[in-house]
Amino acid sequence: MAYELYYWDGLQGRGEFVRLALEEAKAPYIDVARGSKDDGQGIGAMMAELDSDDPYPPYAPPFLKDGELIVPHVANILFYLGPKLKLAPRDEGLRIIANGLQLTIADLVTEAHDTHHPIAGGLYYEDQKDEAKARSKDFIAHRIPKFMGYFERVLAQNPDGPRHMVGNALSYVDLSMFQIVEGLRYAFPKATKHFADYYPHVVALHDAVAARPHIAAYLASERRLPFNETGIFRHYPELDHAVR
Amino acid sequence: MAYELYYWDGLQGRGEFVRLALEEAKAPYIDVARGSKDDGQGIGAMMAELDSDDPYPPYAPPFLKDGELIVPHVANILFYLGPKLKLAPRDEGLRIIANGLQLTIADLVTEAHDTHHPIAGGLYYEDQKDEAKARSKDFIAHRIPKFMGYFERVLAQNPDGPRHMVGNALSYVDLSMFQIVEGLRYAFPKATKHFADYYPHVVALHDAVAARPHIAAYLASERRLPFNETGIFRHYPELDHAVR
Repeated sequence: MAYELYYWDGLQGRGEFVRLALEEAKAPYIDVARGSKDDGQGIGAMMAELDSDDPYPPYAPPFLKDGELIVPHVANILFYLGPKLKLAPRDEGLRIIANGLQLTIADLVTEAHDTHHPIAGGLYYEDQKDEAKARSKDFIAHRIPKFMGYFERVLAQNPDGPRHMVGNALSYVDLSMFQIVEGLRYAFPKATKHFADYYPHVVALHDAVAARPHIAAYLASERRLPFNETGIFRHYPELDHAVR
Repeated sequence: MAYELYYWDGLQGRGEFVRLALEEAKAPYIDVARGSKDDGQGIGAMMAELDSDDPYPPYAPPFLKDGELIVPHVANILFYLGPKLKLAPRDEGLRIIANGLQLTIADLVTEAHDTHHPIAGGLYYEDQKDEAKARSKDFIAHRIPKFMGYFERVLAQNPDGPRHMVGNALSYVDLSMFQIVEGLRYAFPKATKHFADYYPHVVALHDAVAARPHIAAYLASERRLPFNETGIFRHYPELDHAVR
């Protein structure tokens, strides 16, 4: 039975981290909110799950439905799917390590979102633009270097070599790292211009993921939505600047 | 062998969610950063782990050391510890549900932190007070009701009854819910004044946890640090206001 992924239509957002894992594994899945109402899909089908009076409703998209089980939160979905898709380490301890790395990625994603919405997710960007400039300035000066420097260090210190974030094989964490680099480059082209110099292992991992046949085919397909200004990573030129 | 918990000394912060689980289970643990340098503990011991060139260093506190394994992130620590401390459901599906709920709690914790630091964690509160007022206003008006209403609904829709967040027995999620209520009440006494009317199941769960013998003994001990203005939940009267 196909997995059902529930996430907002029209943006990559947090759903993209799950899509990349499903696509790499060529797992059968339905992107429910992007489907047709005639097939029982669409945004209405997603809202029905969120508003359901069934046990343990999800708080927000994305969530994954696998039979009767509803799994919410990106890191939780990937922890759950990883072994099934052969995108997680076999070792139990390394699975916990992978989950910890994914949660650090999740924190970076939240901070990337808050660069354009530092006051309230429910207000327009235009109504918090000054605050967004202040938060983005700090994000570029302090947060990107802290997160990216950490990921570079994890790769450099991997006892199995710097090609993977965990262990000696591709995992969902590697796929998420690809998306982080893509997203930061889209949102902050000036600030990320010298990423390859500062974070060579991270950029090499990004490039290796992009070249994988299933990922390359996905990126060239219509299933891959373009980045845009409704997602997590948004390009507002006034928030971006070069770093020395 | 005792678990080693690593978290900043002097504040409850994110470490408290882990402490509550260890205390409820009466598990042997060392609160490393609060220990003495003479015993190889203290902040220096924590910084040494963060700066280590060992494989898979943690990004930030809190992290738990269990033998050679270092487990970072609150939700990951509790997912790992839960079954060992008998504070997780036996059913594998419900463990994934519990993890999802804990990640929603983690998101609320991050938003509670950002009420007083909406622009940059590295800047003083006083340098972002106006923005903190704006973010807190939105947090009180929209985010607290959304999160708390959701948790109330989870309890109401639990097929095993509203006494627990997951299944029919105490789990680490219940302990974390206690801490959420404590923290929000400390930070926002006016905004949370009528919590018991709006979220009766949540407040009943809070009270039941507070009355558990191991938790009550812990709360009365010196191991429980008081809330203060260096933690996640901070009481700045100018950020708090009554809701109608």
